[in-house]
Amino acid sequence: MRPSGRAAGELRPVSIQRHYTKHAEGSVLIAYGDTQVLCTASVEERVPPWLRGQGRGWVTAEYGMLPRATHTRGDREAARGRQQGRTVEIQRLIGRSLRAATDLEALGERRIVVDCDVLQADGGTRTAAITGGYVALVDAAARLQASRTLRSSPLHGQIASVSVGVYRGEPVLDLDYAEDSEAETDMNVVMNDAGGFVEVQGTAEGHAFRRSELDAMLELAESGVGRLLAAQREALG
Amino acid sequence: MRPSGRAAGELRPVSIQRHYTKHAEGSVLIAYGDTQVLCTASVEERVPPWLRGQGRGWVTAEYGMLPRATHTRGDREAARGRQQGRTVEIQRLIGRSLRAATDLEALGERRIVVDCDVLQADGGTRTAAITGGYVALVDAAARLQASRTLRSSPLHGQIASVSVGVYRGEPVLDLDYAEDSEAETDMNVVMNDAGGFVEVQGTAEGHAFRRSELDAMLELAESGVGRLLAAQREALG
Amino acid sequence: MRPSGRAAGELRPVSIQRHYTKHAEGSVLIAYGDTQVLCTASVEERVPPWLRGQGRGWVTAEYGMLPRATHTRGDREAARGRQQGRTVEIQRLIGRSLRAATDLEALGERRIVVDCDVLQADGGTRTAAITGGYVALVDAAARLQASRTLRSSPLHGQIASVSVGVYRGEPVLDLDYAEDSEAETDMNVVMNDAGGFVEVQGTAEGHAFRRSELDAMLELAESGVGRLLAAQREALG
Amino acid sequence: MRPSGRAAGELRPVSIQRHYTKHAEGSVLIAYGDTQVLCTASVEERVPPWLRGQGRGWVTAEYGMLPRATHTRGDREAARGRQQGRTVEIQRLIGRSLRAATDLEALGERRIVVDCDVLQADGGTRTAAITGGYVALVDAAARLQASRTLRSSPLHGQIASVSVGVYRGEPVLDLDYAEDSEAETDMNVVMNDAGGFVEVQGTAEGHAFRRSELDAMLELAESGVGRLLAAQREALG
Amino acid sequence: MRPSGRAAGELRPVSIQRHYTKHAEGSVLIAYGDTQVLCTASVEERVPPWLRGQGRGWVTAEYGMLPRATHTRGDREAARGRQQGRTVEIQRLIGRSLRAATDLEALGERRIVVDCDVLQADGGTRTAAITGGYVALVDAAARLQASRTLRSSPLHGQIASVSVGVYRGEPVLDLDYAEDSEAETDMNVVMNDAGGFVEVQGTAEGHAFRRSELDAMLELAESGVGRLLAAQREALG
Amino acid sequence: MRPSGRAAGELRPVSIQRHYTKHAEGSVLIAYGDTQVLCTASVEERVPPWLRGQGRGWVTAEYGMLPRATHTRGDREAARGRQQGRTVEIQRLIGRSLRAATDLEALGERRIVVDCDVLQADGGTRTAAITGGYVALVDAAARLQASRTLRSSPLHGQIASVSVGVYRGEPVLDLDYAEDSEAETDMNVVMNDAGGFVEVQGTAEGHAFRRSELDAMLELAESGVGRLLAAQREALG
Repeated sequence: MRPSGRAAGELRPVSIQRHYTKHAEGSVLIAYGDTQVLCTASVEERVPPWLRGQGRGWVTAEYGMLPRATHTRGDREAARGRQQGRTVEIQRLIGRSLRAATDLEALGERRIVVDCDVLQADGGTRTAAITGGYVALVDAAARLQASRTLRSSPLHGQIASVSVGVYRGEPVLDLDYAEDSEAETDMNVVMNDAGGFVEVQGTAEGHAFRRSELDAMLELAESGVGRLLAAQREALG
Repeated sequence: MRPSGRAAGELRPVSIQRHYTKHAEGSVLIAYGDTQVLCTASVEERVPPWLRGQGRGWVTAEYGMLPRATHTRGDREAARGRQQGRTVEIQRLIGRSLRAATDLEALGERRIVVDCDVLQADGGTRTAAITGGYVALVDAAARLQASRTLRSSPLHGQIASVSVGVYRGEPVLDLDYAEDSEAETDMNVVMNDAGGFVEVQGTAEGHAFRRSELDAMLELAESGVGRLLAAQREALG
Repeated sequence: MRPSGRAAGELRPVSIQRHYTKHAEGSVLIAYGDTQVLCTASVEERVPPWLRGQGRGWVTAEYGMLPRATHTRGDREAARGRQQGRTVEIQRLIGRSLRAATDLEALGERRIVVDCDVLQADGGTRTAAITGGYVALVDAAARLQASRTLRSSPLHGQIASVSVGVYRGEPVLDLDYAEDSEAETDMNVVMNDAGGFVEVQGTAEGHAFRRSELDAMLELAESGVGRLLAAQREALG
Repeated sequence: MRPSGRAAGELRPVSIQRHYTKHAEGSVLIAYGDTQVLCTASVEERVPPWLRGQGRGWVTAEYGMLPRATHTRGDREAARGRQQGRTVEIQRLIGRSLRAATDLEALGERRIVVDCDVLQADGGTRTAAITGGYVALVDAAARLQASRTLRSSPLHGQIASVSVGVYRGEPVLDLDYAEDSEAETDMNVVMNDAGGFVEVQGTAEGHAFRRSELDAMLELAESGVGRLLAAQREALG
Repeated sequence: MRPSGRAAGELRPVSIQRHYTKHAEGSVLIAYGDTQVLCTASVEERVPPWLRGQGRGWVTAEYGMLPRATHTRGDREAARGRQQGRTVEIQRLIGRSLRAATDLEALGERRIVVDCDVLQADGGTRTAAITGGYVALVDAAARLQASRTLRSSPLHGQIASVSVGVYRGEPVLDLDYAEDSEAETDMNVVMNDAGGFVEVQGTAEGHAFRRSELDAMLELAESGVGRLLAAQREALG
Repeated sequence: MRPSGRAAGELRPVSIQRHYTKHAEGSVLIAYGDTQVLCTASVEERVPPWLRGQGRGWVTAEYGMLPRATHTRGDREAARGRQQGRTVEIQRLIGRSLRAATDLEALGERRIVVDCDVLQADGGTRTAAITGGYVALVDAAARLQASRTLRSSPLHGQIASVSVGVYRGEPVLDLDYAEDSEAETDMNVVMNDAGGFVEVQGTAEGHAFRRSELDAMLELAESGVGRLLAAQREALG
């Protein structure tokens, strides 16, 4: 039995709220149950120095957690003067995932920064950030088309993400904090709408996982991502 | 005429939403019009090193702005590895203001950290942070009483804050971004419910302000803070 | 009775020594009693990146305290790798104040940096820094005229600053360390020679101050600044 | 055809040289072809603050690349004052992998730090670091037994790692730099000697990978890790 | 001919002003011609962590240059967040030199920090800092005796320093900036009053120096240090 | 008697291995006994900003110690975010020494960075780094000639370095760790093949050294450097 009473293959309630704040080209508040992440996509008419003059754009992500998004308060990274290893790892994952959905040539020499800030954490913040960040990216791309900056969308394919794991010996989908802190294995999966894998990051916390467990987790992930892709499409109308 | 059509002494609509996130002892989303600040108060059972063994507690504040809370995206301070001068200045102001409402002896050897994170900025973020932070502080103090950690509230007096300024020659209350970026003078005023001044920080952006203008601004501030104190009381039931 | 035996409205002896060091375009050692601040103004033929190509100049300030300027030695900020919040707050105040006296268009695309380094601290270092920094700025501007770089002075108006406070219930002028560390209220006031206010920064350390106390402090400040402006004029011959 | 002429499932020549430097409790130079990593294991009789008094130990890893280990010189991270995101990500992976082979209770309140410094890079540095770091860890554990500090080895299970990827449409094992920089998919796999997965980190660089490709890569990895485990056993005598 | 018209073996005028600022246990303004360094010695009743419980004290130095001590303004190290390599090198030299004159056991578990801040630079700042720092150290030690904290002085031997170099082919003593910036060889020599060498740091800027030049420079240094030791004794009365 | 049984004027066995790693233009593993330093020289077709457009090149050095090169593990400087004072001091010394052998005009607008990373430390790492770094520099310069980038070598003169000291009252050559940690005086000497001194850095650890001791140490250094220059020539064929 899962602490939340959910079935093994059951997602938490997902909500995707667009236009959550008013300044960003894309602004989405996504919730996977009690996990809430604000994802904004900002278009900048310049690229990083190492990309200048190549006619290609860039999509990058930054991730942050409000100090009291968690059970006990964490240090504010800006005050400590350093991002934690975990933060760096997560924002690199989000950035790679969103670039996998983007035609950087079609984007042209501009950069889209997707900021993912966790307002409330209850497990799965990085997967929610990817799913919500994709929606914010779509809205930002639509703005570029609306303003006639781009003729067509630079996005090819749709991207969403979910976590899977082995909790008390059972493969389960979309772990919340209660499960996550106790899981033997934790895996984050990013997929596209063609059923292709963009990222697979599995870690054995307790004992190593067998190939059969890996297969079971991948199947849960495939089904979960399918429902998240649908939720994105519904939100985008 | 003000860009928003407000009268000179008119506040923007104020909303104070308690229990906005679930982990913090106090969690308040405050809005002054389009300015939205999430204020959480976290109780920690320890004090900074320089205060140990003195039987007194501490209240401090940290301030942050989500990178795309503003018209154009600002650098993430955690990524740059340094808080800006403006941030440091603001969080010191908030901390001093909230300590002015707190009996640190009565608090005992514990620390309350009030995190003020701006989700959306439209002028007056520091004043909203103080007004909202006070409500979060009240909720955190109530928790300490509810858990029998403290017998009575360590808060004496109520604190709220508003900005005033001279816009196109006229003293006005509660400047929004359109006014703020153009104002000749900008003053942040923090007051308590006994009508006393806790902080007065006035800056001439364009020309120096005359004593008569200062007096007019102080009167607007007194009236504005009065209404904000009422809004706090209403929110706190 | 004040610890120093001064009357409530009495300044400490002020001395302003120009050409204190030989390299800087303006170099002033200012003393308010035992508080000694070395203020140098350096002209640079470039502006910060965000100001390039606009035909305007910039005036900025940096503030530092020698580690043993104070009763007990403080950390050297360069060794700690970070300026303290207090330092940042003060140098921003000095910079804003000096810019209020400068016509940045008339200055042209160049930058003047006013470094204010406290050799000995006994209260009021930031106000002495502003008053002394102004004199250094005048000397630097005179150099630009002498070298025919500028035809007329980019300075309009004269700027000086003093602290006021409520000490043992009495409003007093120009607090020294003994008073400052015990004052209920501390306010730094920057004014120009037309009697206008450039900055007013008042903080209640103990109890909030009443409007009548604020008025009394402002009057002391007006009279004190008047005498400081006269001392500047005398020093400048 | 692979640039090196290797078959799809062929490893580069592996060499594992123990006692490479003299001070460390474990010191191993491992080579996967032209990739050379020096792995040292250092025993410290203390644990991180958050682990004190719990009777458990800790294993952690740090990763570095000599500036000219690569084709073009990279910045020295110590001089820049910051580890890159990639470095942080890698050292976290190595640390988690090695902890998966260690009984932290059996280790007692001490810490083993495994430093992995790349002397020469030609692809697969993180996988070589894990395989070599494990051998260094074994030697350090043996020292603790030899000195009667521990009665039995705190290591349960053996750990090795290899990369797999899709290069020009074909799944291949143990990518070198020429392949890695061009691969469509890159996956690092860490396994133990019971055939269990400890870490699986796959990234689609070009197009998303299908489930069948994932399966083919996992099979290559299983076979490659088997040979690396054998090489470790041979080196350990 | 030297730019200053001095003879090869002639020092610049030396002045040593004790009790320059009022808070420090030792406070000395030393001038070697136009080079002016403020040296303060601060006694702290604690030692660095690595020295605790050993019954020995420590003497250390920190060095700084006011930003406009030089011809053109240098960055403020506190603002840049990092001390320059040159600063680090110099403060280590000063610290080692002053420790060479101190019996650390006799000092007991306390630390004396000698801060050397350059108010005006014209060559030879590090040598002036050592010579002036020694006098500040004597005054601080005397305070410890006066307060009966120590029965006798922890200082054994007297320390002074001067630079020598080869300028336009001629060995010269006590280089000023005009010479220093053009010298072929620059050597800083620290000696004690028994004629022993504490530090010798010679650098060939242009061509390597011959043994005969080294000998000539050492002789100039011996004679110069002799006169500086006398100046210290005179200042100390 | 020296701990190693060496005679006072005896060097440790020296080995110089060229082409140690494959990417760098020059790559040398040098050993002075158990001290092993990897020196790589990297050619970059650009110069630091302050040197642009002057037609001159630059040679610089960076120094690092692998964390477990020493008896007890030291912090990784990249992880601490700061190079230690000792590191900074050493890399400045290496850079100055190698520039003394280079005609920077002849090098043209390019930079050679010599990275010296200590794999194993047993005293004398900085002197081995200079001697080995010179050989790496020669190889890098030869590459520039081989590729017809330069017509002739920009190196004039040959450079090598050794330490000398006073150990238990006797001047000795090439101190190892056992001697170094106990020596009364430690001096690093850098010389060229014309018998000129490039750097002389002597420090009295215990008592100040007499002129006669200085002379004896210089003679040992001259003889030691002579043999090191021969070893370099032999390695370079």
